[in-house]
Amino acid sequence: MNILVVGSMAYDAIETPFGKTDKILGGAATYIGLSASNYQVPIELVSVVGGDFDQTYLPMLNQKGISTLGVEVRQDEKTFFWSGRYHSNMNERDTLVTELNVLENFQPKVPSGSKKPDILLLGNLHPLVQASVLEQLEERPKLVVMDTMNFWMDIALEDLKNTIQKVDVLVINDQEARQLSGEYSLLLAAKIIQQMGPKFLIIKKGEHGAMLFEGENYFVAPAILLDKVIDPTGAGDTFAGGFVGYLAQVEKIDFGQMKMALLHGTTRASFCVEELGTKGLMEIEERAFDQRLSKLKDSFSL
Amino acid sequence: MNILVVGSMAYDAIETPFGKTDKILGGAATYIGLSASNYQVPIELVSVVGGDFDQTYLPMLNQKGISTLGVEVRQDEKTFFWSGRYHSNMNERDTLVTELNVLENFQPKVPSGSKKPDILLLGNLHPLVQASVLEQLEERPKLVVMDTMNFWMDIALEDLKNTIQKVDVLVINDQEARQLSGEYSLLLAAKIIQQMGPKFLIIKKGEHGAMLFEGENYFVAPAILLDKVIDPTGAGDTFAGGFVGYLAQVEKIDFGQMKMALLHGTTRASFCVEELGTKGLMEIEERAFDQRLSKLKDSFSL
Repeated sequence: MNILVVGSMAYDAIETPFGKTDKILGGAATYIGLSASNYQVPIELVSVVGGDFDQTYLPMLNQKGISTLGVEVRQDEKTFFWSGRYHSNMNERDTLVTELNVLENFQPKVPSGSKKPDILLLGNLHPLVQASVLEQLEERPKLVVMDTMNFWMDIALEDLKNTIQKVDVLVINDQEARQLSGEYSLLLAAKIIQQMGPKFLIIKKGEHGAMLFEGENYFVAPAILLDKVIDPTGAGDTFAGGFVGYLAQVEKIDFGQMKMALLHGTTRASFCVEELGTKGLMEIEERAFDQRLSKLKDSFSL
Repeated sequence: MNILVVGSMAYDAIETPFGKTDKILGGAATYIGLSASNYQVPIELVSVVGGDFDQTYLPMLNQKGISTLGVEVRQDEKTFFWSGRYHSNMNERDTLVTELNVLENFQPKVPSGSKKPDILLLGNLHPLVQASVLEQLEERPKLVVMDTMNFWMDIALEDLKNTIQKVDVLVINDQEARQLSGEYSLLLAAKIIQQMGPKFLIIKKGEHGAMLFEGENYFVAPAILLDKVIDPTGAGDTFAGGFVGYLAQVEKIDFGQMKMALLHGTTRASFCVEELGTKGLMEIEERAFDQRLSKLKDSFSL
């Protein structure tokens, strides 16, 4: 199956207790694409960058089998820029700078040859922008996965609910699930959110793992214990990329395969957070991945 | 196998968003005993109460097969009293009142006929008090399990380390594991703590479940998702009681059985938090327990 991804591409400047970067490659679509590129499936990105975007980045992505035909380059504008500082426990961060730049009036354009994706992954963007991508497609994808964040719950809740209604899988974290549903219990929150439309709900809990809900069924996967977390930036997108990459590769979409997809996303994310920025994602050796996935499975097998 | 438990018995006054109690039955030994009494094993409590302790409580415990010969009653003194208020998210609480009373100079006395327990559970008390129980025994138990808390790390760290050195299983929460080890990564924290003596380490993570470590091996169990958490008081002790109760019943102590014991502890605790105080623990129907345990296992099976 092939995957269409819409999301931001960015320059990030990151400060963590373990290091500090200048402007480096970032953005949801970037992390998602790099993560999904570990699977033998066609991937296409729809995004936008400015004239300042490093000219080596798109060819680098292409070399990994990621099509960037849908990445608009606006020569006279600047790339989306985000800067943040992580606290020592890595679970909290302060945003230092957000310059929307090209993202401010981003209108994704799906290339004419890419309007029948099997899987559509809507990265975190304004819910109206996400919905506009669905509207451009010639066929409804077999699976539509949507990421979002509390920011849109605060400022565009009705638009958000309208988009959520149209997707199959919603991916959010535990705080966002509580905010969106108004319920503290994640069990009740999951019920309420599924009534909003998505058949499947994934709730990410960072170092505590992730949960997958479908109706009355749920599956809980722990995270992988690591010696060190260097930089959590992009972990959620990397998770989502591994999730759709695995499903596209096995070409089967059901609760059982989604459990495995959750483990793949979790394992990909564990490589991401071990290095600054996208570095940990650039070369995940198949052997190292398999070992870590196997260790993850062992950690919750009776 | 039989179990000897040392720990507090108390009056608790609890405020949660869902209700408020007057002085009700509480204390670590109480919750541990009630939880372990669901297994077909002899249980003996070593504790202390004052003359104000409700005269129906000890007979109630006896009726559940819990021996209270080791519970000293000091007629002229008052029972340990704790009062606390939980925040709306139930993960944080403020202690309103702590009156140590009889606990202030508690010197546990193990009854003469009870000095060869198979399993000893040292509930949260001053580490020197915990150690004094071990010293009274005629034989080293097959398994010594120890609970403790950050308070002792703050004021009696050396005593704590001396006691930890003597036990087989240490049970603490994630924050305590980080404080005790000085490591944020729970993987590294677990290594350091195991080097302090205990062959096994259990790290409790509340709503995120619990982890069991033995050397390079670890097992992660999720918590049970509940519609409502009414009162978390005693959940950790209930967990510990289910853990030792199960092991005593199967009469086998190894990593594999400890995984199952972790699930039993988790499931017992889920009943505890659904009601105020010890109420949820008083009558756990076998059928309801089995269903919930089975649902727990399903939630992480591939």
